[in-house]
Amino acid sequence: MIIVMQQNATREQIKDVAARVEDLGFRAHLSTGEERTIIGVIGDERQLQGSPLEILPGVERIVPILAPYKLASRDFKSQNTVVKLGDIAIGGDAVVVIAGPCAVESREQLRETAKFVKEAGAKALRGGAFKPRTSPYSFQGLGIEGLEMLAEVREEFGLKIVTEVMSPVDIETVCKYSDMLQIGTRNMQNYALLHEAGESGHPVLLKRGFSSTIQEYLQAAEYILSHKNYNVVLCERGIRTFETATRFTFDINAIPVLKGLTHLPVIADPSHGTGKWDLVRPVSRAAIAAGADGVIVEVHPHPELAKSDGAQSLKPSVFAELMADLAKISAAVGRYLA
Amino acid sequence: MIIVMQQNATREQIKDVAARVEDLGFRAHLSTGEERTIIGVIGDERQLQGSPLEILPGVERIVPILAPYKLASRDFKSQNTVVKLGDIAIGGDAVVVIAGPCAVESREQLRETAKFVKEAGAKALRGGAFKPRTSPYSFQGLGIEGLEMLAEVREEFGLKIVTEVMSPVDIETVCKYSDMLQIGTRNMQNYALLHEAGESGHPVLLKRGFSSTIQEYLQAAEYILSHKNYNVVLCERGIRTFETATRFTFDINAIPVLKGLTHLPVIADPSHGTGKWDLVRPVSRAAIAAGADGVIVEVHPHPELAKSDGAQSLKPSVFAELMADLAKISAAVGRYLA
Amino acid sequence: MIIVMQQNATREQIKDVAARVEDLGFRAHLSTGEERTIIGVIGDERQLQGSPLEILPGVERIVPILAPYKLASRDFKSQNTVVKLGDIAIGGDAVVVIAGPCAVESREQLRETAKFVKEAGAKALRGGAFKPRTSPYSFQGLGIEGLEMLAEVREEFGLKIVTEVMSPVDIETVCKYSDMLQIGTRNMQNYALLHEAGESGHPVLLKRGFSSTIQEYLQAAEYILSHKNYNVVLCERGIRTFETATRFTFDINAIPVLKGLTHLPVIADPSHGTGKWDLVRPVSRAAIAAGADGVIVEVHPHPELAKSDGAQSLKPSVFAELMADLAKISAAVGRYLA
Amino acid sequence: MIIVMQQNATREQIKDVAARVEDLGFRAHLSTGEERTIIGVIGDERQLQGSPLEILPGVERIVPILAPYKLASRDFKSQNTVVKLGDIAIGGDAVVVIAGPCAVESREQLRETAKFVKEAGAKALRGGAFKPRTSPYSFQGLGIEGLEMLAEVREEFGLKIVTEVMSPVDIETVCKYSDMLQIGTRNMQNYALLHEAGESGHPVLLKRGFSSTIQEYLQAAEYILSHKNYNVVLCERGIRTFETATRFTFDINAIPVLKGLTHLPVIADPSHGTGKWDLVRPVSRAAIAAGADGVIVEVHPHPELAKSDGAQSLKPSVFAELMADLAKISAAVGRYLA
Repeated sequence: MIIVMQQNATREQIKDVAARVEDLGFRAHLSTGEERTIIGVIGDERQLQGSPLEILPGVERIVPILAPYKLASRDFKSQNTVVKLGDIAIGGDAVVVIAGPCAVESREQLRETAKFVKEAGAKALRGGAFKPRTSPYSFQGLGIEGLEMLAEVREEFGLKIVTEVMSPVDIETVCKYSDMLQIGTRNMQNYALLHEAGESGHPVLLKRGFSSTIQEYLQAAEYILSHKNYNVVLCERGIRTFETATRFTFDINAIPVLKGLTHLPVIADPSHGTGKWDLVRPVSRAAIAAGADGVIVEVHPHPELAKSDGAQSLKPSVFAELMADLAKISAAVGRYLA
Repeated sequence: MIIVMQQNATREQIKDVAARVEDLGFRAHLSTGEERTIIGVIGDERQLQGSPLEILPGVERIVPILAPYKLASRDFKSQNTVVKLGDIAIGGDAVVVIAGPCAVESREQLRETAKFVKEAGAKALRGGAFKPRTSPYSFQGLGIEGLEMLAEVREEFGLKIVTEVMSPVDIETVCKYSDMLQIGTRNMQNYALLHEAGESGHPVLLKRGFSSTIQEYLQAAEYILSHKNYNVVLCERGIRTFETATRFTFDINAIPVLKGLTHLPVIADPSHGTGKWDLVRPVSRAAIAAGADGVIVEVHPHPELAKSDGAQSLKPSVFAELMADLAKISAAVGRYLA
Repeated sequence: MIIVMQQNATREQIKDVAARVEDLGFRAHLSTGEERTIIGVIGDERQLQGSPLEILPGVERIVPILAPYKLASRDFKSQNTVVKLGDIAIGGDAVVVIAGPCAVESREQLRETAKFVKEAGAKALRGGAFKPRTSPYSFQGLGIEGLEMLAEVREEFGLKIVTEVMSPVDIETVCKYSDMLQIGTRNMQNYALLHEAGESGHPVLLKRGFSSTIQEYLQAAEYILSHKNYNVVLCERGIRTFETATRFTFDINAIPVLKGLTHLPVIADPSHGTGKWDLVRPVSRAAIAAGADGVIVEVHPHPELAKSDGAQSLKPSVFAELMADLAKISAAVGRYLA
Repeated sequence: MIIVMQQNATREQIKDVAARVEDLGFRAHLSTGEERTIIGVIGDERQLQGSPLEILPGVERIVPILAPYKLASRDFKSQNTVVKLGDIAIGGDAVVVIAGPCAVESREQLRETAKFVKEAGAKALRGGAFKPRTSPYSFQGLGIEGLEMLAEVREEFGLKIVTEVMSPVDIETVCKYSDMLQIGTRNMQNYALLHEAGESGHPVLLKRGFSSTIQEYLQAAEYILSHKNYNVVLCERGIRTFETATRFTFDINAIPVLKGLTHLPVIADPSHGTGKWDLVRPVSRAAIAAGADGVIVEVHPHPELAKSDGAQSLKPSVFAELMADLAKISAAVGRYLA
């Protein structure tokens, strides 16, 4: 951490700030420039987070030097983490595709979906039983009943199940019926939920908050990791910007940036990242071309009848085309489709 | 709701879309322009939310006409709602000030704070026992112990207590120790929490999500209202933008916009909306000048020792100046300080 | 400037970077922390702008310490600059109101406007002869003819004239007919224009780019100041954010932030900052309450007939109410209306 | 255009608005819903832009139906436009790579660059002689001298030249020395410049404003097209968002969205879209995978010595790797590298 003093800071003020730093158990290292004095703070600055050094008299601002997360960083672990759902490995050489409906609507819809995604080559099925909806008047999901349907389909088709959990009280139940907990974009900073997901030890698909910086995103992952649950997969799913032509702006830069900063696997959700089914194919291709370890996409046997997110769901034939696309792009970047 | 057809939509497609609208129980009203046909959907379009009409063949896009919330709107209730915490009324002529530390740190800190905010004229005390923190390594609050301290201070100083709740499992407890539940910015779309807060019937201070549109904000309020809990106070607390000179951008426009769209009271949180103590006075004045029903500000007897948010906390003397400022501004807009 | 080395930077790399710094004529000051070595660069770092030290082997990132502008900063000049348009002073104790139509449409419209803004107490008249319009099919302004009308009205009503210039080739002409050049939000980084405006020596109203940071804004002002033209007035006019309920988000924080960083006067444009006439009064009040030195607002004798920006223009009676509001708010913050 | 009336609009108000619509030469078509009356405006609504119908008594809001541009739209011309620079075609099956230094610094630097980009397979050379720089103290480019160097290199290496123009007064000169005018992100709404670029008839590379919506971007293109200059190539170059891990957020969604809305070619600038050289390869691959017609990238023989943008410039060996990447990705999407 660097403390930048004001241009007109007095010697007394500089001395006091340095003394405060030492009091807190750190060493202070002064450097006097032409226009400003700066004080280097030697020690593990993460312990100073929240300490309001910046309001001491004479201080202009504080510049953190270290990333505010540790377990999630490449500094801590340089090799890629591979998260396993049974025989499926996310974060290795293979590119993984997870597909399924936004919401579980019925046994028939789910079986029909499982059948065609399995045939087209997907390895895991997504589908929401608990649905976070912007409006209280929208379909809120089938709850436990939906989870049971997912478990049945898992049995029948041999697909791994990824499903969302919205409340700490539901974690135990959702773990029972699924192979991977999904924490949605609106809950990325729901710390009660992150703590419990960490405790569960279950694999977690942690979506990026739609207005969270990459740094905050890795801090959210750190919450889970700090409970010794290292089975965390990250997922870029679009951020909120001024652009209204798409529902969100898929942050393609985030893919290589995350791969550089963290050892955790990174996948992409172009369905939410665009909000329009006809953008899902090009943006999925782009994500894999940029280095993503997989994609999670919304599909539906009859998108025009979907109870939620129909506009961004792929119908079976388009999903098959997407799989063909991704096989080619994976090969072009030296990988292969799982 | 308006359905805009593509320029080259066929008659058949137009007919099919209209038929689908009628199937869903609405009336379809065609209007043929020079370049586009549009179909007006007659009926309560809120029931169509999530229905993917936009992917029917020939459809270009859907334009909603009605706001997606009802109970929160001025259309539903034109007169201002006044939320009462005992003898304090928020949303009436008086401007209300809520003040207190970011986090409850100790009995002494809390009593000292309660004393000076009471003396300066504040009517309610804020203070967090459960703290949502970006980093798992930061101080997470005193929990129940903190709630007990708040209750003691309420007794001793006669101040109403506003404190945050982060998990549905804690709602009952937090209701017991407080006069108003605070739902923080990161939980504005934590629907499990909103449902329970609605059920509790307790007054709720619902902060705006830092990246939520005003429309989404009112939909979040609708969740609570839909449980027949009408004691909801809104709070603009800054939004995330590209600007880095301040922690958030306080959306001053939101104050009069919200007052126009909803009957609920609207207060301002300039501490989080700026992130810097020296901006709290000018932005508090601005909020009242723009029509806010009150402010909630962070204060601390010794900001330089605060365990969280010290940089944006006011020390006692500055808080007293702020109160003097707000008395003058309130008068200038025809109101008075409670 | 601080150079933060990577965790695994070698001694050799650190030595090389330090050597490079010395080669460039600066002194290098090493500070070895527990996890990172940092190198302080002693000297006027503004001369290093654009120098790509961050790609030298072993470098993690560069942290600038000094603001990248000089003449515009309070460090350079601590006392407020007062910009004079004849007998009007902007930046002193008095709050100044500039009002007028978005575009000069006709002699009658302009005279009618001048009459009522003068009567209500405005000191200067705004009005565009050259109009930057998003669409090539919109009214583009009357050009020279419009400037002549402005000059006539100046003569007749004794109001100072503020009008926009869009191209370096027009600066000489616009100076002749006006008291102050306006540089619009879309041209804040039109450097050819900034250079010429600097050369002209004429007072300049420099609007903030709608997506420019405060730092970039002050760098744009620096362009003008660097030509020894110190008659620059800044104007917050709203920034682009994700919120769509208003055309722009008025950045109220920017008012006190700018007043702290620079000695230049700061006014507010709530007409563009909101895009809606009924938000102009509350947001104007807020701007003055937050410390702005004045406002510039759009008015029109018949907004419903305006050729541009009718939706955000005040009609005469509302403008008169606004003036009454601002007199009260100015008094509440210890100032008065010019 | 649709006019949505307020819930409590009177019959009289509805009649008046309809009458006003008819007065303006359009037909009004009423549609009475359960909660709102809406008025469809039949005719070419582009002529109504700027007409403030929304402030007529009883009007709630206006919903445009048609895109506010015409010549740039697929409705107007459904087939792809191919822009030719001599024997190079942008917008056809081949993927085109334009590369070169941010700024022309010297004859040697330019020749060295031209040599290696030519060898690696680039078809056109970029390089700025007029440089828009955030700070007045940064290197502003070599001006005419730089243009002459570009023309010499064009002669020697047979590369097409793309270079920026910043002021309408320079357009004639820049046309003489280049094959394509570049209009930079900060000038996308510099209408004086757009008009002159349109008049010139020269091919134009129009970069997206870093905070411009796709709609505004196409309106800016429309300015040029409206002068009958159809040789316009669009270029996504990153937008400004809240994320600070990268300089800008490359809007990958914009590629397929633009390809859908307009017939103009669309290329990508991952150098500015990321700001970091090590992100240029993955994001370039992503852009082509998403359907871009080419990329423009910054390269430098010695990035660590570059006078500007060194941090985002590729050195020769990395550029060669990028070309190999793009050949594979182009093939994977059924195209080939020019």
